[in-house]
Amino acid sequence: MKPLVSIIMGSTSDYDIMEKAAKFLDEQNIPFEINALSAHRTAEQVMTFAKNAEQRGVKVIIAGAGMAAALPGAIAAETTLPVIGVPIKGCFDGLDSMLSMIQMPPGIPVATVAVNGSMNAAVLAMEILALTDEDIKHKMHCYKASLKDKIIKANEDLKSKEFKNRVF
Amino acid sequence: MKPLVSIIMGSTSDYDIMEKAAKFLDEQNIPFEINALSAHRTAEQVMTFAKNAEQRGVKVIIAGAGMAAALPGAIAAETTLPVIGVPIKGCFDGLDSMLSMIQMPPGIPVATVAVNGSMNAAVLAMEILALTDEDIKHKMHCYKASLKDKIIKANEDLKSKEFKNRVF
Amino acid sequence: MKPLVSIIMGSTSDYDIMEKAAKFLDEQNIPFEINALSAHRTAEQVMTFAKNAEQRGVKVIIAGAGMAAALPGAIAAETTLPVIGVPIKGCFDGLDSMLSMIQMPPGIPVATVAVNGSMNAAVLAMEILALTDEDIKHKMHCYKASLKDKIIKANEDLKSKEFKNRVF
Amino acid sequence: MKPLVSIIMGSTSDYDIMEKAAKFLDEQNIPFEINALSAHRTAEQVMTFAKNAEQRGVKVIIAGAGMAAALPGAIAAETTLPVIGVPIKGCFDGLDSMLSMIQMPPGIPVATVAVNGSMNAAVLAMEILALTDEDIKHKMHCYKASLKDKIIKANEDLKSKEFKNRVF
Amino acid sequence: MKPLVSIIMGSTSDYDIMEKAAKFLDEQNIPFEINALSAHRTAEQVMTFAKNAEQRGVKVIIAGAGMAAALPGAIAAETTLPVIGVPIKGCFDGLDSMLSMIQMPPGIPVATVAVNGSMNAAVLAMEILALTDEDIKHKMHCYKASLKDKIIKANEDLKSKEFKNRVF
Amino acid sequence: MKPLVSIIMGSTSDYDIMEKAAKFLDEQNIPFEINALSAHRTAEQVMTFAKNAEQRGVKVIIAGAGMAAALPGAIAAETTLPVIGVPIKGCFDGLDSMLSMIQMPPGIPVATVAVNGSMNAAVLAMEILALTDEDIKHKMHCYKASLKDKIIKANEDLKSKEFKNRVF
Amino acid sequence: MKPLVSIIMGSTSDYDIMEKAAKFLDEQNIPFEINALSAHRTAEQVMTFAKNAEQRGVKVIIAGAGMAAALPGAIAAETTLPVIGVPIKGCFDGLDSMLSMIQMPPGIPVATVAVNGSMNAAVLAMEILALTDEDIKHKMHCYKASLKDKIIKANEDLKSKEFKNRVF
Amino acid sequence: MKPLVSIIMGSTSDYDIMEKAAKFLDEQNIPFEINALSAHRTAEQVMTFAKNAEQRGVKVIIAGAGMAAALPGAIAAETTLPVIGVPIKGCFDGLDSMLSMIQMPPGIPVATVAVNGSMNAAVLAMEILALTDEDIKHKMHCYKASLKDKIIKANEDLKSKEFKNRVF
Repeated sequence: MKPLVSIIMGSTSDYDIMEKAAKFLDEQNIPFEINALSAHRTAEQVMTFAKNAEQRGVKVIIAGAGMAAALPGAIAAETTLPVIGVPIKGCFDGLDSMLSMIQMPPGIPVATVAVNGSMNAAVLAMEILALTDEDIKHKMHCYKASLKDKIIKANEDLKSKEFKNRVF
Repeated sequence: MKPLVSIIMGSTSDYDIMEKAAKFLDEQNIPFEINALSAHRTAEQVMTFAKNAEQRGVKVIIAGAGMAAALPGAIAAETTLPVIGVPIKGCFDGLDSMLSMIQMPPGIPVATVAVNGSMNAAVLAMEILALTDEDIKHKMHCYKASLKDKIIKANEDLKSKEFKNRVF
Repeated sequence: MKPLVSIIMGSTSDYDIMEKAAKFLDEQNIPFEINALSAHRTAEQVMTFAKNAEQRGVKVIIAGAGMAAALPGAIAAETTLPVIGVPIKGCFDGLDSMLSMIQMPPGIPVATVAVNGSMNAAVLAMEILALTDEDIKHKMHCYKASLKDKIIKANEDLKSKEFKNRVF
Repeated sequence: MKPLVSIIMGSTSDYDIMEKAAKFLDEQNIPFEINALSAHRTAEQVMTFAKNAEQRGVKVIIAGAGMAAALPGAIAAETTLPVIGVPIKGCFDGLDSMLSMIQMPPGIPVATVAVNGSMNAAVLAMEILALTDEDIKHKMHCYKASLKDKIIKANEDLKSKEFKNRVF
Repeated sequence: MKPLVSIIMGSTSDYDIMEKAAKFLDEQNIPFEINALSAHRTAEQVMTFAKNAEQRGVKVIIAGAGMAAALPGAIAAETTLPVIGVPIKGCFDGLDSMLSMIQMPPGIPVATVAVNGSMNAAVLAMEILALTDEDIKHKMHCYKASLKDKIIKANEDLKSKEFKNRVF
Repeated sequence: MKPLVSIIMGSTSDYDIMEKAAKFLDEQNIPFEINALSAHRTAEQVMTFAKNAEQRGVKVIIAGAGMAAALPGAIAAETTLPVIGVPIKGCFDGLDSMLSMIQMPPGIPVATVAVNGSMNAAVLAMEILALTDEDIKHKMHCYKASLKDKIIKANEDLKSKEFKNRVF
Repeated sequence: MKPLVSIIMGSTSDYDIMEKAAKFLDEQNIPFEINALSAHRTAEQVMTFAKNAEQRGVKVIIAGAGMAAALPGAIAAETTLPVIGVPIKGCFDGLDSMLSMIQMPPGIPVATVAVNGSMNAAVLAMEILALTDEDIKHKMHCYKASLKDKIIKANEDLKSKEFKNRVF
Repeated sequence: MKPLVSIIMGSTSDYDIMEKAAKFLDEQNIPFEINALSAHRTAEQVMTFAKNAEQRGVKVIIAGAGMAAALPGAIAAETTLPVIGVPIKGCFDGLDSMLSMIQMPPGIPVATVAVNGSMNAAVLAMEILALTDEDIKHKMHCYKASLKDKIIKANEDLKSKEFKNRVF
């Protein structure tokens, strides 16, 4: 089995956030790999990883990093696969990592999602995979429908809150 | 009894903040409804809600949401009722949700209040209702007077703080 | 004829921005007044203005100000009429005036709109007036419909942009 | 010919920025469509557009918007196609539109690129298309190589700058 | 005994911060008064207070407030006494209250100090009083000298930190 | 004649902003001096200046600086005279210089005014001088009254703006 | 033994952060000194320190400070040794201290590192020392290699995380 | 002649800013090289450059870049030479590039200077070179003295500004 999605994080301290991406893919039965590689401490490994990802069968790369978050950009520099960036919150509420990955120069985009938004990175990866896989497309439609059901159900639960002047 | 104010929140996780609006209206005997509807997960329901609110007798809509807080704007897009937006604090101290609702394009305003300022949203709703209802207008005057009394009384309590060089 | 909307600005240098609110109301045939009054330089006049506005027939107040924009709050402090705040851009892209009016304390809301968003303040005022005036309500519906027509027409104009690979 | 990419902008005033995406796709011979649709002024059209895009053959949607930039999220809410968001600079250096589209709630990601980064949105769209089309994949590799050549050539031109103590 | 300094806070919830100003003045034997008055909830009292402060013998006013911190400006509007503003931290790390008091319009300055910097407000008040009172001037010189002694002593304590390669 | 106010700027490039302080004092017949001294390039001169200012008869110091604006703090460190800081706008809309002077440590306050607010610094200086000089106090009262007259007159001029639905 | 690096902090309350710089140098056997000196409370000592550092054999100065962090700049003003600034987080996530030291005027640079990045300041100091000392250069190479080993080992540990669809 | 300083910029569009560093070094007779290399478009060249710089005799690297400014960090990852980062202003007043280079992870510092502060980067480089070269040390002392002379002379020129109440 080859990984369709490769999750990379800049430091193992980012694992608790990036685990959400892994869990989502796992639940959806999307084969993935997950590793920690630092753009600054293991630059060559990052370069090798990025260059080889396509031929190893990877379709989408999710890269999470904090602070001066160079990892997604460093990977995007060496592959034509779509790279999704997850800014990890550290200082400045994550603004530093968000700007470090979203403000990429012409030609080398990073598809950036919300601060600590690793689960959404996995959803985005699955949306991309769904373009070429009917089964994943089907799961994607189910997943989106489930989001709706969940909030409608949660709203039902709000009915228990009692107020004198509440109208139903 | 028809609801005069409709409180909407983007997620039930916003309930603790939005409850303050409900409590204020409840204390003032203003009939209201309160629901969770997501602009992104239940867009059609939001659209239907917004389109029907006026004919259901709703006069003012209070919409609270966090992050990329599209809910107030999505509602404002489909109604001519005044829509009050409450930015819910999550990341960036609530700046993301504040900007997402205050920076509306020409023609579709959202009356935005402070971060987590749901109680003030209810006060504003009541000010608007007071334009057409003498009883509510009267309550509004009482409420504003009570604000003054409360701080004057609180200031009295400060008198107990003892300093050698304090002068009264 | 009594003014239904009172437009106030903190300085006559704000006129170019606030004029858009006046023009919108004028086009919609809503009687209004427009004046410059400073919260800091003419505090007593502001107080008197705010206290008397209701009995003079004013229904909604639009207050625009820049920098430490205290004007909308100073008015809201002395009236139960809804007060709409327009942050005027000066320094910090208008963030100073936005925060100075949106972050109001409990009990004294200011309905804040976008930076330099005076036209939207007028639209919001009209939405509020529409709650008690069928004629205005009707105009409001027409106005909102016209917004849609305008962008649909503008989109038609985009058709003239020629590209080899554009598909219609 | 069906469009593979659909470019949408919230207002025709965004055309000058979004044109760069169109030009890039045009140069790469990727069939695309380009339209202006407002999340707030034409919400129903946006919903219909988003729901039908997939069956019309669109693979990727690029949505540019300024201020409270709800458009990309409104589209993402109604499709499982990947949606790329382009924050358009207006106020606050584009921070308002960036946060309005990047900070999406769980389940509905928007792949956000740099402020005014519409060309990169097109590159990202092409990277996604390349996953299913060998010809596009080939063009993508050529394009990335050309980026390198361009800066190496530009660096050559810097050699003409003369300094006494410059070393080659 | 007349108060030389009047400490005002916008809400009794600011007391814990503003108490530091009171304690400093108390230790320096400067007669002062301390009260809570809200610019928005008790605007008239604030106006009366500001107008009468000078004739009651007050020389300097210290005003602390949070959020849309209008209090220092409202006082400065009605007196020619120097007004020192203390931004109280709430949302946005206190940036909202800082900008609300520092960005005053021409003619009505507020001498703003650091976020939660009430003690420094008291030091500044004392520096101003020292201009007219030799005794206070003397205490001021002693106080500033004590600051130096304190850090020099604290540095001595750092000598106990042991490192192999530390040099003294 | 001894200078009562000393205006210092960190660079002669700040002169155009700081000139407004000089002009205001000149109009009010307050003797002053104005010089450029850099905290970083002429630290010793700054120290000497700060230490001697009091005995030279200076009562208040106004220090304007941009970027990492250390000048007001460096002066405040060496005098017990009140020091007023004027943040000069350069990068970041002046936020860098504002924070560099307002966020002073305990014991060494700088009375900070608005970005480029040198005229207000002069007004504040005059308010402080007025505490000990009846003549200046009188001028101060006249000046504040003139502010009110000016905006009332400016408002009169607004009457010429014609609208169909304007009410007077 | 003379100190090659001098660590200075603006207050002993910064010790917990600055200790990391000391520990790093200690581990690398670089002789250093560590002291607390305040730019504002002990300006003369800072000046003397800065003027004498070079002749005492110091090669690099690391200065940490919070808020209006003038210390690194005050030292840089009086020495030609390289000065490394460490912004200490207090208010505003450390943005105040970062801007106060990075935005230095022409001619007086401060080499600023990340918020609370004292360890990196020590690494940078060691990189500078390595230019003149082969032994330190060697240690530096070992240290950088160890960074790589550490993350590669940490990544190994991630292998224990079990997922159904994880691929190795 | 070998270059002691290597100036790198992420794009030739940064040349106008980075030229100031080159000019300063040229005036001081420090041999240098200047090139454009992109971290994202020519990652391998950057890596090769960084790995070889030390053995080519380079002592200090100055790297300027805008937006998601990964260049200084990418170089610092592959060398133990000190790397000085110059944030180039583009969007967000240069905050994006500043945070992208200053917020480096432990072990890989970038010595960051002010936005567009390339001249100061050159001064810092020269301060580092001065540690090993008496001639450069001497020039450095001359340069710092000249800064002082320049502002003292500029202050002399301010004497021509005439005011009635100016005191000398």
